Amino acid sequence: MAMKENIKPATGRLGVLVVGVGGAVATTMITGTLAARKGLAKAIGSITQMATMRMQDGKEKLIKDVVPLADLNDIVFGGWDIFPDNAYEAAMYAEVLKEKDLNLVKDELQAIKPMPAAFDHNFAKRLNGTHIKHADTRWDMVEQLREDIRNFKAANNCERIAVLWAASTEIYIPLAKEHESLASLEKAMKENNTEVISPSMCYAYAAIAEGAPFIMGAPNLCVDTPAMWEFSKKMNVPISGKDFKSGQTLMKTVLAPMFKTRMLGVSGWFSTNILGNRDGEVLDQPENFKTKEVSKLSVIDNIFEPEKFPDLYGDVYHKVRINYYPPRKDNKEAWDNIDIFGWMGYPMEIKVNFLCRDSILAAPIALDLVIFSDLALRAGMCGIQTWLSFFCKSPMHDFEHQPVHDLFQQWRMVKETLRNMVGETAPSYLD
Amino acid sequence: MAMKENIKPATGRLGVLVVGVGGAVATTMITGTLAARKGLAKAIGSITQMATMRMQDGKEKLIKDVVPLADLNDIVFGGWDIFPDNAYEAAMYAEVLKEKDLNLVKDELQAIKPMPAAFDHNFAKRLNGTHIKHADTRWDMVEQLREDIRNFKAANNCERIAVLWAASTEIYIPLAKEHESLASLEKAMKENNTEVISPSMCYAYAAIAEGAPFIMGAPNLCVDTPAMWEFSKKMNVPISGKDFKSGQTLMKTVLAPMFKTRMLGVSGWFSTNILGNRDGEVLDQPENFKTKEVSKLSVIDNIFEPEKFPDLYGDVYHKVRINYYPPRKDNKEAWDNIDIFGWMGYPMEIKVNFLCRDSILAAPIALDLVIFSDLALRAGMCGIQTWLSFFCKSPMHDFEHQPVHDLFQQWRMVKETLRNMVGETAPSYLD
Amino acid sequence: MAMKENIKPATGRLGVLVVGVGGAVATTMITGTLAARKGLAKAIGSITQMATMRMQDGKEKLIKDVVPLADLNDIVFGGWDIFPDNAYEAAMYAEVLKEKDLNLVKDELQAIKPMPAAFDHNFAKRLNGTHIKHADTRWDMVEQLREDIRNFKAANNCERIAVLWAASTEIYIPLAKEHESLASLEKAMKENNTEVISPSMCYAYAAIAEGAPFIMGAPNLCVDTPAMWEFSKKMNVPISGKDFKSGQTLMKTVLAPMFKTRMLGVSGWFSTNILGNRDGEVLDQPENFKTKEVSKLSVIDNIFEPEKFPDLYGDVYHKVRINYYPPRKDNKEAWDNIDIFGWMGYPMEIKVNFLCRDSILAAPIALDLVIFSDLALRAGMCGIQTWLSFFCKSPMHDFEHQPVHDLFQQWRMVKETLRNMVGETAPSYLD
Amino acid sequence: MAMKENIKPATGRLGVLVVGVGGAVATTMITGTLAARKGLAKAIGSITQMATMRMQDGKEKLIKDVVPLADLNDIVFGGWDIFPDNAYEAAMYAEVLKEKDLNLVKDELQAIKPMPAAFDHNFAKRLNGTHIKHADTRWDMVEQLREDIRNFKAANNCERIAVLWAASTEIYIPLAKEHESLASLEKAMKENNTEVISPSMCYAYAAIAEGAPFIMGAPNLCVDTPAMWEFSKKMNVPISGKDFKSGQTLMKTVLAPMFKTRMLGVSGWFSTNILGNRDGEVLDQPENFKTKEVSKLSVIDNIFEPEKFPDLYGDVYHKVRINYYPPRKDNKEAWDNIDIFGWMGYPMEIKVNFLCRDSILAAPIALDLVIFSDLALRAGMCGIQTWLSFFCKSPMHDFEHQPVHDLFQQWRMVKETLRNMVGETAPSYLD
Repeated sequence: MAMKENIKPATGRLGVLVVGVGGAVATTMITGTLAARKGLAKAIGSITQMATMRMQDGKEKLIKDVVPLADLNDIVFGGWDIFPDNAYEAAMYAEVLKEKDLNLVKDELQAIKPMPAAFDHNFAKRLNGTHIKHADTRWDMVEQLREDIRNFKAANNCERIAVLWAASTEIYIPLAKEHESLASLEKAMKENNTEVISPSMCYAYAAIAEGAPFIMGAPNLCVDTPAMWEFSKKMNVPISGKDFKSGQTLMKTVLAPMFKTRMLGVSGWFSTNILGNRDGEVLDQPENFKTKEVSKLSVIDNIFEPEKFPDLYGDVYHKVRINYYPPRKDNKEAWDNIDIFGWMGYPMEIKVNFLCRDSILAAPIALDLVIFSDLALRAGMCGIQTWLSFFCKSPMHDFEHQPVHDLFQQWRMVKETLRNMVGETAPSYLD
Repeated sequence: MAMKENIKPATGRLGVLVVGVGGAVATTMITGTLAARKGLAKAIGSITQMATMRMQDGKEKLIKDVVPLADLNDIVFGGWDIFPDNAYEAAMYAEVLKEKDLNLVKDELQAIKPMPAAFDHNFAKRLNGTHIKHADTRWDMVEQLREDIRNFKAANNCERIAVLWAASTEIYIPLAKEHESLASLEKAMKENNTEVISPSMCYAYAAIAEGAPFIMGAPNLCVDTPAMWEFSKKMNVPISGKDFKSGQTLMKTVLAPMFKTRMLGVSGWFSTNILGNRDGEVLDQPENFKTKEVSKLSVIDNIFEPEKFPDLYGDVYHKVRINYYPPRKDNKEAWDNIDIFGWMGYPMEIKVNFLCRDSILAAPIALDLVIFSDLALRAGMCGIQTWLSFFCKSPMHDFEHQPVHDLFQQWRMVKETLRNMVGETAPSYLD
Repeated sequence: MAMKENIKPATGRLGVLVVGVGGAVATTMITGTLAARKGLAKAIGSITQMATMRMQDGKEKLIKDVVPLADLNDIVFGGWDIFPDNAYEAAMYAEVLKEKDLNLVKDELQAIKPMPAAFDHNFAKRLNGTHIKHADTRWDMVEQLREDIRNFKAANNCERIAVLWAASTEIYIPLAKEHESLASLEKAMKENNTEVISPSMCYAYAAIAEGAPFIMGAPNLCVDTPAMWEFSKKMNVPISGKDFKSGQTLMKTVLAPMFKTRMLGVSGWFSTNILGNRDGEVLDQPENFKTKEVSKLSVIDNIFEPEKFPDLYGDVYHKVRINYYPPRKDNKEAWDNIDIFGWMGYPMEIKVNFLCRDSILAAPIALDLVIFSDLALRAGMCGIQTWLSFFCKSPMHDFEHQPVHDLFQQWRMVKETLRNMVGETAPSYLD
Repeated sequence: MAMKENIKPATGRLGVLVVGVGGAVATTMITGTLAARKGLAKAIGSITQMATMRMQDGKEKLIKDVVPLADLNDIVFGGWDIFPDNAYEAAMYAEVLKEKDLNLVKDELQAIKPMPAAFDHNFAKRLNGTHIKHADTRWDMVEQLREDIRNFKAANNCERIAVLWAASTEIYIPLAKEHESLASLEKAMKENNTEVISPSMCYAYAAIAEGAPFIMGAPNLCVDTPAMWEFSKKMNVPISGKDFKSGQTLMKTVLAPMFKTRMLGVSGWFSTNILGNRDGEVLDQPENFKTKEVSKLSVIDNIFEPEKFPDLYGDVYHKVRINYYPPRKDNKEAWDNIDIFGWMGYPMEIKVNFLCRDSILAAPIALDLVIFSDLALRAGMCGIQTWLSFFCKSPMHDFEHQPVHDLFQQWRMVKETLRNMVGETAPSYLD
């Protein structure tokens, strides 16, 4: 069991490099973090900043008082983007936050200028960025990104770096033999196999190579391969993801456990989404949607365990749709129809209409993943961070394990991991 | 710690006496139970019949294989009602189940004829029952009910009895000094203090006096008094309730923990219901609605702990409305609007429209409470059964404890209690 | 038939005096009008400014090119309020329009300062205004208001005045014998019968006495009495109302005609509203809600004609609820559940969730009523303006006529009236 | 103007031949009609059976008392289907009506046995019917169908026949040169050009050739071509359609006129549907959905006239989705999100959730179209029946005219046409 004294303290500056630093999620996260550390906003939705847990002695403590987390004041933001706008301009374009809120930290936002992105149009056909790197091979792409990381670290006097993917969903690529070992992955990069090596893999490889935790916020294959698991363990670096669990899936991972706990049957679950931001535009492309769909569909089966409860969940018709709908902008809206049945098989229906804001929900998740990943690094935890499943639609797992999707089980995993770090066991009765 | 060998086996017949045996919940529960034991229906929604739990060795077992529960085949149904219809006629009137489903067990339903009810029109002004007892005092009412119980037990050759309140919500009565001790309660009954002694208290007293567990399915004060706690401990009888957690509140005790776990703020929660059954008619009367409202309102505060999280839950405007709306019959429908806020205080909205069926959801809860109460009796557990909070909108608790409303915490309490009964501790990591 | 040449031209300035000039509806209407005439906003939702109609020659013309309407540039705003804030301050408090939109016309708004209001706390118990007139009798109240009108007219060099009630709903008062003739009304005012003479009646009397059209935007009895009909005819002044048809009822007067036209039956209609503005607060008081409820309930029966179609509409259960819910502010939200039935009596359901903004919908209605009332005055049309039913939840009508609620029939009445004014007949086939 | 005396009386029997006689719409229509004429059900939703209209003298009369309509007792049902089940078996399979309702007319339903259908798998790939005709060419297909019609007419002693398409949506086919004249159509049939000649065209041609009105209930191209217009005029036969306006579009053609009438702007309209009947299965095929989508999309533009109101409707994002979702069976459910804007451009939202029953809504439409088409035939009205637009999602029109989509304008067209038939003019003021 790890002990608190074994965790390196969170001294020095933490550089947070965001892929898609001009995107809606990134600019929202950055603005809120900058405002919160000035006392101009509350970091609502953030576990690392606001949540408590019960200790062995029965007392509740703020999580940030239990484990040594990087202080918001020690964070430096930077990153890459396919558009050259600074973070202020990008946030204005994103139209998530009001101008008056952006103005709270205008100077700092304007100072955040993206580095040119590693990009391949084939992986996101709806995007036409201009602020991109020219690389002869994927390996060359990696080398340039590593240099970016080193330069940023030195220029900003950072002690540690974390790399966060907050960019678009790439097209679906199945697991290929090239992803099965580090050696074959590196070979494919050097041979510039652009079919199986996506840009996001280059970012991940570069981060790990530089000793920086990598977090995958989209459903991309990316670090979800044996090659990356191997590499992250070899380099002693935590990796986590994937796909921020923000709105509809968050709801699903709470409602499905409710039906299960109450032994109510489910015959169908229809989920539709309308959203009008750049993410919506990308997902309007079938190849990109497929990546997302795979991420979204697995949730229910995993929770319901139809093989154990065939009478209740043996025949759930589950359908997920995402529709690009510009009037809605970033205010993603979800509508779910759930057909359930109870006593003697009688049917009932639940409709959930979630008028959410994609980036408002994702921003604290992104921040927490960064801060917890940095904690994991200092605690010497490498490879897949299963305990961070709580934040992810499609939690990473190796071939021998099943992911946990139930939000409350995930939450217990977070707390249990933190307790283990500080040598505590769970308090009896209630957590 | 209790050991399995200390639990008396579930041999012999269990008489289940239902107050309101001709009501929608009771007839639905009875029909489904009779059909299930003939293999003609599944007991969907029932924890005792379908749910599993993980054991120390990592294996999952059906709960009914873990602890000795009464078998459905050993149950005999009876009860009281203010209308003289037999259970088949009453079920036809309730229009919850289809005629073809009732016909599966028509003969058995027809054989269930209610005993005249203990009733006081002042406690349910919208009801005008004719099939009622004449009693000079509340104490006399109790005596008649005790005799009913003894007669039923003998006539049906029952080893044990459980009494379940599945009748209407009584008008609101506050805790009075007469409720504070067994002595003062009995005195008030003998003095026929009809202001503070409701009919439901007579049923509860009679049940406890006869050694039968009592279950309060409505939000009535009834057993929620020091006098009854004292009496149930003295007689070594379990009591539980109150108010079946069927639809909207079930949803609340899942969504509220989700917001809390994710540190999302809540500014308002508006809940409205439309229903057209007899329950809806009774609740259309303001004094009766008040009892229900108190039961429904406490849930959110308890989960949110506004005193600990004032920034998130310090100002939640919570409103609950119930509307009598005959076109809907038993198909109660709930509409909730929830105003939440996230990162930097930005607002979002969730609307939940639950087209449920009141009695379909309540029936398995009622059955489970009966079966678990009988288990508790045999295991020697008396007084308030906190572990049955899982099934209740307004879990009973003494003055020193807070109720637990979070459905998943409640579920852990059920499992932990059962494990304790059989000398198991919780399996590590996941429950 | 009136001829265009018989309509006095709309020369000179039109003074618009608003009762509740600091309220949400008034400030929103004023801001938008001021901005529109500067070309800084579109008068969206306004029939007088944007709508067209088809002429005899088949061509479509803007309504404002068909009849001589007051130009927005000729309007001067003023009014009364129980709070002394100027229109800018009041609009900031109302939180309907964004600060940046108010700032478009900040100076002009600041210049609008309310005159002290005629007010009686008994008619709106939730309101505690301080900026109020002291009057010994209702008749004195009238005299003071008349003086206000004359002073405003002179000070602002107005040719004509219109008085618009955009203040709160008063408590319900039934038609009394005092309302039955002008003589008895005046007598009651002089005798200071505060039971039957509401403040709104004083405003109406004052306006009519000064030759100014009066418009009732709330459901108050006010001008809906034989006394006022008599007075308005005597003084040759148009009166109109009542209760702006903004959100839920607008929807009803479109959906109900659809069911009727398609011969679909209706068994129930449940309407609930949540709103958090001052209007919501006032309506939380049962006596005030009753006034509103009466206004809202009559709509459906009138459209369905249950006596003619008993099989379809003989048993419609109609319920309307308004809930004060502060988190929603002015963004009134309506949820309707409609139970319909079709072929062979099979049931279907429609749920409509209208996330509206009360004042945004009401503002153009208020403006149009003012402008059309001024047109009516110049065209010599006095008494009840039936053709303005289009804008009202509860259209005024005398005892010999039935109101028309169907929105599209109302719209035809508007166009037909306008065509008559200019000597046109309806074009054949389609309007 | 036609005169009542010029309309042939509705004597003798009317044979109604339905394409897809075993489908959900057909069996529901037939069952209800048979039950209604026995007095066992009301023909709810049927204009011909229940609706009234106001006459010149101000009185309201039942439409069926105004014009001579075929009596339900004189109708004989028959038709074609790709499955051999009789109407009772087919209705049981469709699961629209309850068994007890079907049993009201069981014998008559069992007696209705479909003739083998003209079918081409390429036009509905999800369907695999076995009860189909073998035809060497499309022309041969026509010949067989004509023979069917003649045989049915003789065998059932019918005076007149009407042919109704109540079968699936065919794949999308654009208007081709072969459809431009009767000559080229016949040539293509004889040359067996299966690319441009769909099975539905063969039914239509056969009906017209036999002097029977043809009604297109699906959005198929079919009679919507110059060739068919020419043929129907030549043969003096009415044709009408297309696509029954049952649920979501019905709602649209009421809400859109409301926005327009009130001058409220619209920025987006998102419509999604879930349905699980055979229709849903067919529409899950993209080529078939395209036909439907074209039919559904045009409605809004036509009503909004964006070219006249660019500020309000110049940028409406309209999206329609249909999702096959088996748990829902025939109980099609629609969810619409409408983004509107009002005064000063402020946005509002409306959500409509229509839990409808596809066939329950379509059945009376189908019946009315048959009965009115038969009236038109007897009144000597040939070619496109514009006045029946009221019943259609995608009203037929020639190249010189625009369709009318507004439900209430369509309703006026029905009444005006009927008044013309009997020599009445519209009553003044209100219709």
